[in-house]
Amino acid sequence: MFKAIVSASTLRDALDSVSVLVEECKIRLNEDELAIRAVDPANVGMVDLSLEAAAFESYEADGGVIGVNLSRLEDIAGMANSGDLIQLELNEETRKLHIQIEGLSYTLALIDPDSIRQEPDIPDLDLPAEIVLEGNQMDRGIKAADMVSDHIRLRVDEEAEAFYIEAEGDTDDVDLKLTREDLIDFTSGPADSLFSLDYLKDMNKAIPSDAEVTIELGAEFPVKLHYEFGEGMGHVTYMLAPRIQSD
Amino acid sequence: MFKAIVSASTLRDALDSVSVLVEECKIRLNEDELAIRAVDPANVGMVDLSLEAAAFESYEADGGVIGVNLSRLEDIAGMANSGDLIQLELNEETRKLHIQIEGLSYTLALIDPDSIRQEPDIPDLDLPAEIVLEGNQMDRGIKAADMVSDHIRLRVDEEAEAFYIEAEGDTDDVDLKLTREDLIDFTSGPADSLFSLDYLKDMNKAIPSDAEVTIELGAEFPVKLHYEFGEGMGHVTYMLAPRIQSD
Amino acid sequence: MFKAIVSASTLRDALDSVSVLVEECKIRLNEDELAIRAVDPANVGMVDLSLEAAAFESYEADGGVIGVNLSRLEDIAGMANSGDLIQLELNEETRKLHIQIEGLSYTLALIDPDSIRQEPDIPDLDLPAEIVLEGNQMDRGIKAADMVSDHIRLRVDEEAEAFYIEAEGDTDDVDLKLTREDLIDFTSGPADSLFSLDYLKDMNKAIPSDAEVTIELGAEFPVKLHYEFGEGMGHVTYMLAPRIQSD
Repeated sequence: MFKAIVSASTLRDALDSVSVLVEECKIRLNEDELAIRAVDPANVGMVDLSLEAAAFESYEADGGVIGVNLSRLEDIAGMANSGDLIQLELNEETRKLHIQIEGLSYTLALIDPDSIRQEPDIPDLDLPAEIVLEGNQMDRGIKAADMVSDHIRLRVDEEAEAFYIEAEGDTDDVDLKLTREDLIDFTSGPADSLFSLDYLKDMNKAIPSDAEVTIELGAEFPVKLHYEFGEGMGHVTYMLAPRIQSD
Repeated sequence: MFKAIVSASTLRDALDSVSVLVEECKIRLNEDELAIRAVDPANVGMVDLSLEAAAFESYEADGGVIGVNLSRLEDIAGMANSGDLIQLELNEETRKLHIQIEGLSYTLALIDPDSIRQEPDIPDLDLPAEIVLEGNQMDRGIKAADMVSDHIRLRVDEEAEAFYIEAEGDTDDVDLKLTREDLIDFTSGPADSLFSLDYLKDMNKAIPSDAEVTIELGAEFPVKLHYEFGEGMGHVTYMLAPRIQSD
Repeated sequence: MFKAIVSASTLRDALDSVSVLVEECKIRLNEDELAIRAVDPANVGMVDLSLEAAAFESYEADGGVIGVNLSRLEDIAGMANSGDLIQLELNEETRKLHIQIEGLSYTLALIDPDSIRQEPDIPDLDLPAEIVLEGNQMDRGIKAADMVSDHIRLRVDEEAEAFYIEAEGDTDDVDLKLTREDLIDFTSGPADSLFSLDYLKDMNKAIPSDAEVTIELGAEFPVKLHYEFGEGMGHVTYMLAPRIQSD
C-alpha cells in the first residue's frame, strides 16, 4: 500500500538527485520515509536519499519496494507548476503507479525491482576534514576547474586554514581558495583527493544553488557530499570514489 | 489594389496560424477582409482564416489574390517590435509586395497563385458536442499526451458531464479530465474521436495561450477548433481529420 | 612588468571587440594604455583597440607585449559577475598571466608574440561622409540585410540627406533609410560601398547596442567604424575592405 501527496518541487528535487547517476532505481516505501539508494554503472558514484513522511502533505506506506524509470517520472513531475501538489497511488494488482496533478492523471508502468542493479551499501567512513559551504561556491569551483581539466582536486591546507578547489591543465591551472571566513563551517584536517570532474559536475547539477553543502574529505579517500531539500526533511548523501593522483 | 497598415502582433498571429500547416498560401484581398484557406499536403489539416478590415489601422483592397512564402513573410514581420505598425502595399505591375516597418523597406517577390495548392472547401459539419476552454488547458492536455503516444483522443463523457483529453501508450496512459466547472462553456453530446498528435501540436502552437478555444467534436468525425485574435477581429478555424480507433 | 585591476564588463567588452576577428592577438602593455591591433587571416577586417590606464581601477605597465588566446581569456572573464573586479598580473619569469577574480585564481599560459600574425597598419583614410548612429539602428539594418543577401551596401544619398543600409537578394530587396533626423550626426558626402555581410555581422556583435557608432564612408572605399566602451575610456576602430559592386 502506498498513497502520498507531495509538492511538485520537493518531488522534483528528490528525483533529480538520483537521476544524475542512474536511469532506473528502486524506491523503498517505508512507513516513515521514502528512501532511495543507487550506484552508477561504473561503481564510482553513489547516492543515498531519504524523504521523511513529514515532507509530504500526506503519506501512507507499509514497506513495499517499486522500480521506476526516473526520466519518465521526471517528465511527469515536470507537467506540474512548482506550487502544484502531486498525488501518488500504487495499484498493487496492476503494479502501476497512478499520478494525479490538478485534473491530469498519469498511469505509470513500474519496473520489476529485481531487474534493477542492487542497492549499494554506503560505507561509514571516518573522514578527517569537514567543509560546509554554499552550493554556488562549489558551483563556481567546478565551473572554473572545467575550463582546464577533467579532474578536480579537493584539498585542505591546514596551515592556511583554507579549503581549495583546484584543477591542473596541460598549460593552465585554476584554483578557488575558500578560507574559514568564506565557509559556513570548517573542521580542518589532513585531506587531499582527486576526483573525476564529470561525476562531480553531475552531482552538483542536482544540488540547489541556495543549499548548504557539507563535504567530508580525506587523503586519497572517497568524498561525501551532504545536502538537504524539501524544507530540511529531504536528505541526500553522495559518495564519490577518488582518482589516483597523477603526479 | 492593396494597401494596408496593421500592427505587427496581429499580422504575426495571422501568419502563424497558417504557417503551421503550409509553407506557401494564397491570400485573398477582399474588400472587407483579408482571407486565407489552406490544407496541408497530406489533406489531413485545414485552416480557414479571416482578418476583418477593422483589425487594420487602414485597409484598402479590391478583391485580388496574392501568393506568398509564409516563412519569408514571418521573418519580415519578426523584424518589427510588437508595438510597431507594418505597412503593406501591392505593386500590381511588378507583382511585388512592399513592406515598410519604421524606416525599413522590404520588397517581397510574390508567388504565382496558380502554382499554389488549391484552397480547400471546409465542410459544414453538424457536430454534436461543443467545448469551450482556455488555450493553456488544451496545451496541458497535448503536452501530457505527447509523453506517451503519437495519437490523442478527444472524448465527451455525457454521464460525467466532462471532456477528456486522453492518450494510450504501450505501457503508460494519460488523461486530462475537464468538468463543466473547469470549462468556459460545454454542450454535451456523443463525441469520441482519435487524432494525430503531430497535427494537433502544430495547430496548438499557433493558438495564443490566453485565447478561448472552441472545440466542435463528434464520434469518429473531424474536429473543428475555433479561436480569435487581433482583438476579436481575426478568426481562425482549424479542421482536423480523425484517425481510425485502433482498438 | 604588468599589474592591473579592471572591471569584468570593461575587460569583456575589450576582448569581444577583437575576438570577432582573430583567435589570438598581441596585447601591448604600454605605460598609459593597453593596446591591441589585429587583422583577420583573410586581410579583410582590422581592429584597433586602446583602453586608457584611467579605465582601470589600477594600472602599472612598462611597455611589454604578451600574446594571448582570446577565447580562453574570455572564458575566464566570463567567470566573473559583471560588477566583479578582475586582477591581472604578469609573471615575467614563467611568462604566465595570473588572473584573480574574488578568490578564484587562474594561471594562463601565454603565447609567444612572435608566433602571432603581425599587427596591421591601419591606413589613415580621408573619407568624405561621416554618419553617427545608435548601435541598435545598425543592428536592425544588418539583421534585415541578412534576410536576403550575404552582401550589404552602405550608401549616402546627398540629395535626400539620408544614409541607406541596403541589400539585394535574388528576388527580394531590403533597405533601411535613416534621415538626418534619425541620426545622431551626419556629414553628407559622395559615399557608396559594398561589404561582406559576415564581417559586418561579426563586428556588429561586439558593439554594445547602446553605443554610438561613427561610420566613415567613401565610394568603393574601406569603411571605418568607431565606438567607445568602458565609460568612454576604451576606443575601438574597425576597418573593413569593400567588395566590388556586382552590377
